Amino acid sequence: MALSSALLDQAVDQLATLPGIGRRTAMRLALDLLRREEHEVIRFSEAIRRLREKVMYCTECCNISDRAVCDICANPARDHTMICVVEDIRDVIAIENTRQYKGLYHVLGGVISPMDGRGPDELHTQELFARVGRGGIAEVVLALGATLEGDTTCFFLDRKLQGIVPKVSMIARGISIGGDLEQVDEVTLGRSIADRKPYEQSVRR
Amino acid sequence: MALSSALLDQAVDQLATLPGIGRRTAMRLALDLLRREEHEVIRFSEAIRRLREKVMYCTECCNISDRAVCDICANPARDHTMICVVEDIRDVIAIENTRQYKGLYHVLGGVISPMDGRGPDELHTQELFARVGRGGIAEVVLALGATLEGDTTCFFLDRKLQGIVPKVSMIARGISIGGDLEQVDEVTLGRSIADRKPYEQSVRR
Repeated sequence: MALSSALLDQAVDQLATLPGIGRRTAMRLALDLLRREEHEVIRFSEAIRRLREKVMYCTECCNISDRAVCDICANPARDHTMICVVEDIRDVIAIENTRQYKGLYHVLGGVISPMDGRGPDELHTQELFARVGRGGIAEVVLALGATLEGDTTCFFLDRKLQGIVPKVSMIARGISIGGDLEQVDEVTLGRSIADRKPYEQSVRR
Repeated sequence: MALSSALLDQAVDQLATLPGIGRRTAMRLALDLLRREEHEVIRFSEAIRRLREKVMYCTECCNISDRAVCDICANPARDHTMICVVEDIRDVIAIENTRQYKGLYHVLGGVISPMDGRGPDELHTQELFARVGRGGIAEVVLALGATLEGDTTCFFLDRKLQGIVPKVSMIARGISIGGDLEQVDEVTLGRSIADRKPYEQSVRR
């Protein structure tokens, strides 16, 4: 579809590069932006530009941060002997919201995905090994998605970390709390049966 | 959710102002932009800023254009006695793609919607009346969506245009070509029965 305006065409092209946004939606977004005041659109465009230009990553955990060392890594009240390995900042937020974890994080920036040309070196794995290599870490918790790519990454990290760190663990997989058995897929259900635990250990006291 | 980075927070806030984009999706978009090269993100942000700063509207039909008079209005091969009134540029593109219409357009920039505080004066209605008032127009075709707001706008325009222009018409409503009767909603089906035409007129010869 050729548009009557090259400016509009370019904006739609750019918006359509966003994941999950096709050209039709991109056009809707562009028309919405056009209806706004100019200063609002400048603020919008500047927020995106500034994010990319000025973003910093914590030198410890590689999470997005406004400081050289992020609030979590700099917090002396947290358990500095535990590192939870996650894919990105969204997982840090999700785990923080559970209030169940008091250790540190390590943000990989993705998972190993040969299909997308993403190997271990495209992720922050070297930073993790260097960090663990400095000593003082008792346990690394792998908290990646239960996907093929997540599993591959867990396998890779476990192999590399064995011998450097006393304990490598992985977050539990099983049926969701509040879930009906009949609605659980068979792989998850099968796994949760294989991974069953003594009743006393399963019930929170 | 408080983020570890004010920059990220602001970018997510801004992306979440787009229609149909919640904070969760906005976060996904922001992380995707962060993974790109800096020059790509600058091109992205500039395309949006430039669209809003430099956009021009055709002085005739109010469509988005890079020139004072758009390609359609400037084209002598088109029928300058017909004006098709549409909501926005997407409708112009959709109608152009049918190759069934050779007249001019008038882009309202929306429809009357009291709920959104949009009355006739927020739309390009005055430009339409001025344009028709200059004479030489034989027919105005109302091609707005078959919604309450579209109908209200058609009603308003028809009342205002009666007497200034020889003919005000509205695009046909009825069942879609290729559609099964049982899947058509009852309002559309009822309307298509009421608006039935002699068979000879209905079949394209």
